[in-house]
Amino acid sequence: MRRGEVEEYLREQIPLSAGMDISVVEASPDGVTIEAPLDPNVNHRSTAFGGSVAALAILAGWTLVHLRLRAEGLVTYTVIQSSAAHFDAPVSGPFRAVTEPVDDHAWEKFTRAITRHNKGRIGISVRVMSDGHAVASFTGAYVAIAGHKSAGDE
Amino acid sequence: MRRGEVEEYLREQIPLSAGMDISVVEASPDGVTIEAPLDPNVNHRSTAFGGSVAALAILAGWTLVHLRLRAEGLVTYTVIQSSAAHFDAPVSGPFRAVTEPVDDHAWEKFTRAITRHNKGRIGISVRVMSDGHAVASFTGAYVAIAGHKSAGDE
Repeated sequence: MRRGEVEEYLREQIPLSAGMDISVVEASPDGVTIEAPLDPNVNHRSTAFGGSVAALAILAGWTLVHLRLRAEGLVTYTVIQSSAAHFDAPVSGPFRAVTEPVDDHAWEKFTRAITRHNKGRIGISVRVMSDGHAVASFTGAYVAIAGHKSAGDE
Repeated sequence: MRRGEVEEYLREQIPLSAGMDISVVEASPDGVTIEAPLDPNVNHRSTAFGGSVAALAILAGWTLVHLRLRAEGLVTYTVIQSSAAHFDAPVSGPFRAVTEPVDDHAWEKFTRAITRHNKGRIGISVRVMSDGHAVASFTGAYVAIAGHKSAGDE
């Protein structure tokens, strides 16, 4: 899947991402960056709504897991199980969620669990940046279950 | 502020809440319930997008703190500092975020800190329900800073 295809997939399958007016800046099995403008994500203080920041991070983490599993030929469906976010600074412009590199050992354990037990869990960290600064940090635990095709998976 | 006023305020000030098509079911200083339909919040699995669930919970917690501070005559602005969410079950219909009762002692400590130090922090727990079942749990730490009027605060 190319960057544009990923963007189209997210906007179609998860309409809130279209409402947030996301754009996919980078999308590879090694890293995902998704950006959103301030306007549709603004709050009562003219800064980014925390819910938008959290949703963008959840989306970036999910996209990374999805793309990397596909690249390795694993057919699964992936959902978020838990998340933690810390909002460090107000966001007064466009902001982007950037996945942190995934530890190879953790990934291997994850895919082995999927292959052997049809189910694996992995933690993904995401940094949210705005105007060159880190504005929020996020970790999500994602669960992938083998053998279920998602809409859009061929 | 009445229920309808709160709904209008949220939809105007935080446009993503309009995109999520939220409706305010209950809004008092003692408890807030905000509901969202599935359609605008759906994901690739035809269940609720985790980002929508998290955003609804963030919104309910924020609204509770906002309303209760206003009811006590405290002029502040309130932002979320950190959050943790656990997604326990897929959501296949409308879902609502229901704030848990706030411990009186914690609230008193919170308002005392605002009065004395112009800044306080409080943890708010929110349950997300769908079709009568708890589908997610959420806790958010909100920070209120004294002396700043928000748009819409009179």
